[in-house]
Amino acid sequence: MTDTLDPASLDPASLLGRYDEVRAYTERLAAPLSPEDQTVQSMPDVSPTKWHRAHVTWFFETFLLAGNEPDFAPFQDQYWFLFNSYYEAIGPRHARPMRGVISRPGAHDVGVYRGNVDDRMRDLLSSLDENALAKLAPTINLGFHHEQQHQELLLMDIKHVLSLNPLQPVYAGRAATPGHAGPMGWVEYDGGLVEIGHAPSSDGDFSFDNELPRHQQWLGPYRLADRLVTNGEWLEFMEDGGYRRPELWLSDGWGRVNAEGWAAPFYWTEREGVWFEHTLTGTRPVDPSLPVCHVSHYEADAYATWAGKRLPTEAEWEHAARLEEDTTTPGYAPNLADTETWHPRAAGAPNGRLRQLFGDCWEWTSSSSSYLPYPGFHPGVGAIGEYNGKFMSSQMVLRGGCALTPPGHARASYRNFFPPGARWPVTGVRLADDGWNRCCE
Amino acid sequence: MTDTLDPASLDPASLLGRYDEVRAYTERLAAPLSPEDQTVQSMPDVSPTKWHRAHVTWFFETFLLAGNEPDFAPFQDQYWFLFNSYYEAIGPRHARPMRGVISRPGAHDVGVYRGNVDDRMRDLLSSLDENALAKLAPTINLGFHHEQQHQELLLMDIKHVLSLNPLQPVYAGRAATPGHAGPMGWVEYDGGLVEIGHAPSSDGDFSFDNELPRHQQWLGPYRLADRLVTNGEWLEFMEDGGYRRPELWLSDGWGRVNAEGWAAPFYWTEREGVWFEHTLTGTRPVDPSLPVCHVSHYEADAYATWAGKRLPTEAEWEHAARLEEDTTTPGYAPNLADTETWHPRAAGAPNGRLRQLFGDCWEWTSSSSSYLPYPGFHPGVGAIGEYNGKFMSSQMVLRGGCALTPPGHARASYRNFFPPGARWPVTGVRLADDGWNRCCE
Amino acid sequence: MTDTLDPASLDPASLLGRYDEVRAYTERLAAPLSPEDQTVQSMPDVSPTKWHRAHVTWFFETFLLAGNEPDFAPFQDQYWFLFNSYYEAIGPRHARPMRGVISRPGAHDVGVYRGNVDDRMRDLLSSLDENALAKLAPTINLGFHHEQQHQELLLMDIKHVLSLNPLQPVYAGRAATPGHAGPMGWVEYDGGLVEIGHAPSSDGDFSFDNELPRHQQWLGPYRLADRLVTNGEWLEFMEDGGYRRPELWLSDGWGRVNAEGWAAPFYWTEREGVWFEHTLTGTRPVDPSLPVCHVSHYEADAYATWAGKRLPTEAEWEHAARLEEDTTTPGYAPNLADTETWHPRAAGAPNGRLRQLFGDCWEWTSSSSSYLPYPGFHPGVGAIGEYNGKFMSSQMVLRGGCALTPPGHARASYRNFFPPGARWPVTGVRLADDGWNRCCE
Amino acid sequence: MTDTLDPASLDPASLLGRYDEVRAYTERLAAPLSPEDQTVQSMPDVSPTKWHRAHVTWFFETFLLAGNEPDFAPFQDQYWFLFNSYYEAIGPRHARPMRGVISRPGAHDVGVYRGNVDDRMRDLLSSLDENALAKLAPTINLGFHHEQQHQELLLMDIKHVLSLNPLQPVYAGRAATPGHAGPMGWVEYDGGLVEIGHAPSSDGDFSFDNELPRHQQWLGPYRLADRLVTNGEWLEFMEDGGYRRPELWLSDGWGRVNAEGWAAPFYWTEREGVWFEHTLTGTRPVDPSLPVCHVSHYEADAYATWAGKRLPTEAEWEHAARLEEDTTTPGYAPNLADTETWHPRAAGAPNGRLRQLFGDCWEWTSSSSSYLPYPGFHPGVGAIGEYNGKFMSSQMVLRGGCALTPPGHARASYRNFFPPGARWPVTGVRLADDGWNRCCE
Repeated sequence: MTDTLDPASLDPASLLGRYDEVRAYTERLAAPLSPEDQTVQSMPDVSPTKWHRAHVTWFFETFLLAGNEPDFAPFQDQYWFLFNSYYEAIGPRHARPMRGVISRPGAHDVGVYRGNVDDRMRDLLSSLDENALAKLAPTINLGFHHEQQHQELLLMDIKHVLSLNPLQPVYAGRAATPGHAGPMGWVEYDGGLVEIGHAPSSDGDFSFDNELPRHQQWLGPYRLADRLVTNGEWLEFMEDGGYRRPELWLSDGWGRVNAEGWAAPFYWTEREGVWFEHTLTGTRPVDPSLPVCHVSHYEADAYATWAGKRLPTEAEWEHAARLEEDTTTPGYAPNLADTETWHPRAAGAPNGRLRQLFGDCWEWTSSSSSYLPYPGFHPGVGAIGEYNGKFMSSQMVLRGGCALTPPGHARASYRNFFPPGARWPVTGVRLADDGWNRCCE
Repeated sequence: MTDTLDPASLDPASLLGRYDEVRAYTERLAAPLSPEDQTVQSMPDVSPTKWHRAHVTWFFETFLLAGNEPDFAPFQDQYWFLFNSYYEAIGPRHARPMRGVISRPGAHDVGVYRGNVDDRMRDLLSSLDENALAKLAPTINLGFHHEQQHQELLLMDIKHVLSLNPLQPVYAGRAATPGHAGPMGWVEYDGGLVEIGHAPSSDGDFSFDNELPRHQQWLGPYRLADRLVTNGEWLEFMEDGGYRRPELWLSDGWGRVNAEGWAAPFYWTEREGVWFEHTLTGTRPVDPSLPVCHVSHYEADAYATWAGKRLPTEAEWEHAARLEEDTTTPGYAPNLADTETWHPRAAGAPNGRLRQLFGDCWEWTSSSSSYLPYPGFHPGVGAIGEYNGKFMSSQMVLRGGCALTPPGHARASYRNFFPPGARWPVTGVRLADDGWNRCCE
Repeated sequence: MTDTLDPASLDPASLLGRYDEVRAYTERLAAPLSPEDQTVQSMPDVSPTKWHRAHVTWFFETFLLAGNEPDFAPFQDQYWFLFNSYYEAIGPRHARPMRGVISRPGAHDVGVYRGNVDDRMRDLLSSLDENALAKLAPTINLGFHHEQQHQELLLMDIKHVLSLNPLQPVYAGRAATPGHAGPMGWVEYDGGLVEIGHAPSSDGDFSFDNELPRHQQWLGPYRLADRLVTNGEWLEFMEDGGYRRPELWLSDGWGRVNAEGWAAPFYWTEREGVWFEHTLTGTRPVDPSLPVCHVSHYEADAYATWAGKRLPTEAEWEHAARLEEDTTTPGYAPNLADTETWHPRAAGAPNGRLRQLFGDCWEWTSSSSSYLPYPGFHPGVGAIGEYNGKFMSSQMVLRGGCALTPPGHARASYRNFFPPGARWPVTGVRLADDGWNRCCE
Repeated sequence: MTDTLDPASLDPASLLGRYDEVRAYTERLAAPLSPEDQTVQSMPDVSPTKWHRAHVTWFFETFLLAGNEPDFAPFQDQYWFLFNSYYEAIGPRHARPMRGVISRPGAHDVGVYRGNVDDRMRDLLSSLDENALAKLAPTINLGFHHEQQHQELLLMDIKHVLSLNPLQPVYAGRAATPGHAGPMGWVEYDGGLVEIGHAPSSDGDFSFDNELPRHQQWLGPYRLADRLVTNGEWLEFMEDGGYRRPELWLSDGWGRVNAEGWAAPFYWTEREGVWFEHTLTGTRPVDPSLPVCHVSHYEADAYATWAGKRLPTEAEWEHAARLEEDTTTPGYAPNLADTETWHPRAAGAPNGRLRQLFGDCWEWTSSSSSYLPYPGFHPGVGAIGEYNGKFMSSQMVLRGGCALTPPGHARASYRNFFPPGARWPVTGVRLADDGWNRCCE
């Protein structure tokens, strides 16, 4: 699986190869899950595995086959309705919290649907001339990245489903060998007038609409922690009353702490004085060297306040990430889904650089997607135009990627977002601070 | 499947035969359902099919094997917790609305659990002497009737699950051939001092605790409709503004009408001016000759008010049902689950008797289970003692049985109950009236 | 204030006297309350004092002036809408939970409204001839009793309003001098075929619709406690884990215990190991000799289960109360509102009779108003016909009266009702038991 | 009432004058309201008038008297608790949604409390030497601005209270004489590196913490509408299906539209085809020349999308407002509370400048307070440190002021904020657009 798709040089063969690769990866991720596992929706934010498998298929059927296949007819009229998600322009959608009551089509039926669309997509791609292909390439590419987003969500969602089962089922794999994190260091940046937004030269030729347009922002001097906050550090926060001190919390966050009884990260449970963590590879004692994950934006912000620091802004994060990218780091391999660790890893030894930047945990920023869209942003035309713009409200932006992110789906300009109270995604904390020492010299 | 189990004459062979019969019937009812179908909990009141299959198994394991099997160990410790329902005395239960998030054990695993308990139950029953058997017989018998209750619920529940699927899946069978209902007639009763409660001579030797003790009640003269209210009559009620006239409704009922937008029975939907009804055999146009079903107590009461009548009391219903039983009716075959119609049937021609008394639809009475328990009722000791007593609050009593009731599970003294707003059970309406004409002669 | 209004002998003068008496009593009860006090609605079940004062006025304006006053015009069109309560037939009502947002008309304006209607009512009553008066007498009488119901509610409601104020304001009066309760004794009854329902000879000539018709019921032998359960006995229940033992509770009740954290009667709070009780005369330490009050039906039922007893049925209570009435008890003075104690009193010394029967606390029965209406009940015609019938769902019947009940408003046939979870009314517990000792002689 | 308090040159006399001025203005605003009006809390976001009057008094008592008055004792211990708002560090607060159940202290009692604190504050201010005064001046000044915020809220809140009363009460005044708005024009800005944040030279010496520190931001070229969107333009949006077209809405906003049935601005109602608007001066037909107000951020954003424009960012708004301030406009008088119009006015004739910039309606920006705090922001120490920082989550920033804003309380750097769904504040819409035409010349 590669990150370098250049639509300018598209030939049917490589496009087909990429199609098969992306589609097969979804099925590979679903393979350990029984028909029953694939049916459950454990809360409104979670979708059943078989729904993910069908919905990404519906995307290709709707946005590619429907307009380009001669004599197009949908595989099944009702699927049109069932597997639409948020694209209101297409028609009334099946209410999201009810996805878990739809037992049919079953997991096997969804496989049949996938196979049918795959055959037709292959036929279509093979039949197009270069011109036609160039015209469709952006939508095909969008389909790949859309499916990759759902690959990540499929894993985050099934992690939640399995977490509620007293039998503590395992998705796959086993606990990683212990590592170490080393002390937290800082990398300093001068700021100034910087460029933010998707840059094809370093980010690859694909971006979502909300990464555009590239534009200028002014940054004061700042510094970033060189690794993520660890479980060990989080335990200190807890022991210091972190979840019981209102002065550390945003008002809405404090409301959630009390209403929902937050006292530790989402998947932590205490048994006889020992903290355990639910992971996709099983339930195990909390390892202090691993990055803390499954904390909400509210928790991340409270931690930063407790630590006398703050969260980075989007622009600070992206500017720093670009500088990292400019330098070749031999042996650097981010912890994305292809490591099959299914969980963040320890940061390892300091190296004067930003560690864990891509992969491990999505990193909360202090930037709200409400602030976005970027200056000059205009949504696309029609249903696909709704892709990101309409969610730009009351969500916080995260950067980087996580251990469940498919390879080829992480880049410096990527803007993921979740509501500030979301805890089921794989989210962690990188601290930031003003670089005032430098500015006062 | 028979109704006549006499614990006094229990021999291991007939008990084993009965055990196999009851247990096999559950599996037969679940057979048309896929693993995905068996996983879904479509609302808090509904339980997944595979939960029903496991819970009735847990009953035998807990209340029979645990105390009597040498070297007893549960099949799986966690099942102990997962498949308990309301028996608080046994231990903390898995929250009811979360049954649908438990993907594992899967449908097949539940089958393995059932097989294991069946083998052990057979061993146990074969190994007991007559004395020991006589001591356990009431609990074994309770296990049979408990499983039959869940057989009925399994069908009511899956009907709700399938109803929410836009694909309109069918459970089994096909629509019945049309029938006719004939005009509604009345059967009159003198009342007086009557005996109410379980009577072994006519009800069989088994009863639930809430059918006891048999006691006296005083009834004024009354009369009962000789058949259930039909869909055709219900349409008249609707056309006369039945769902829009507050004066017809109990205050709580009118609140529900408005809050939930009730405008027709639960499973009815209108398309282009035609009413359709979701059934286990598919969605089909409403047949005016069939009994109306899936109406709440509130709707039943409003209908009766509209018709200038009232609902029967429990005692009125039971007294009348006993008189019916005293007369042999050749060819009378109630429409219970063994007809495999899976839906109420038309009443057919009047015969001067109460038609549709057992089977077709459970019949709402004006009696609240809060009024119960019967004078002198004392709950049993221990967990089984919680069987019915603790639900005796804010529920209304229904009598008779329905098209999803297993044969051998209907009797004159049977007291089913549901909350007055429940609409997913198979419930219908038999009208009653005071017999004032007679009393004034 | 007297109880003996005989419509057959109505003359305008006595009717006017009675009118002035009832109306003045409402104002007397409201007198200690500031405009701010009279405005607050502390929960949906509670109505503001000034709403009560206006609503009972609206009743006379609507049901008497509107049809009988020449050239009738409402005092204020909007009051028509604002001060209707549940009489849906009159028109859309102002949503009940929003009564507390209506600051205008203010307390003084409501006084003006009352004065206006009083003047017009006096004119009307003075102008009618005997015939016309006889025709209106039942509605006038209903107006008196309706206002008395609201007098009691006004007190119960303001008790709740003041309870939420950290300043712990006092309505009036001061704590009663301590009393004693004596041990609980029992009074036995044979049962048999008894008559239940309103009996003019002993209950006075007025009754609400739900006390009719008088009819026969069969009672087995039973016995009743000769006084109410005391705070001291309730503390024993609490100390024995009464609020923590699910086996004592109805399922719905146990749900409320957990959802709402019930651990003591409604108005009790613990400070440094001492229990205090909010009353209309102030907050004071719980007196073990006083009757427990402000317990829900669920709590009453759990207590009875814990005590190895049960609650009385309505018929048992009424039958016993009639027998009490037949005997003249010199010096017996029930603790109703005219004692101005504003709280239940201690039972005092045993006397072989049922003490605290009328007054002190309304007594929960095991009878649901769903069971009602009485055999042969038919609601009246028009809006007044909705008086009681439509509330006959999911409510439990209480008998007797309480310390906030206006004198002349308690009688053996009176059927008060509240939902089983209601705790803000003044409700207590009288135990009952089967009379098996007698039946086995 | 003036805007120019310079703490450096504070003398006791001018400080006392200012104190009396601010305090008297609160009482003047409350004067038309009855004790009942002052008691009501019509929804959780709204506070009763008498609570506002007491809470601002509590502020002076807590943050000034408590630390500086010799032998300080609170006026009333319980007021300490009752009239705290969000300052969690001070102690447990009385739950916000319960403010409306506190009938005592009444409106008059609150006046007594105010008088007591005023006397003590005057004594304190008179007794301090210059040094001590200079030290307290910032907190005293904060107390003035805090009280002004509550003056505005008091009016917004009572507007909501009165809106729910079917009698349609009037707060004060009468409808303004009709005006005209003229066509919408645009003012263009070059952007570039600009300074944002409180500037004492033009904003006055006071600012809230969230207006600091002043810092640099980079702006692309942009333009702003020269007046607010009018009711007439909003009616076009409605007629074009604005509330029924999901593609115009943020996803959360569309959810609210459907869940709460939004179809027009908050205080609009339709009667027989004519739209009416509830105002503090009465209910009157919607005037198309007036600015639309009481629209949420979601509605403002949807309108901008419909119009092919967008909302301004905070920095764009502030940069433009500063340029306006630099130019003296003879005769410019913003429509703040001192006009006693109590409602936005028409924009009048175009003049090449930004009209309605301060006053009339608070203007939604596209900036979330989550994006804030400003770079380098650090909350103050102790309870006052919580002033703004902790609300910086899921809120949108508004700029300018409104017709209910006290004079002296509007400035270019002021950052008001409300949740994106809030509709009861006086909020309107100024459109913005990218200045791409200029940049491409």
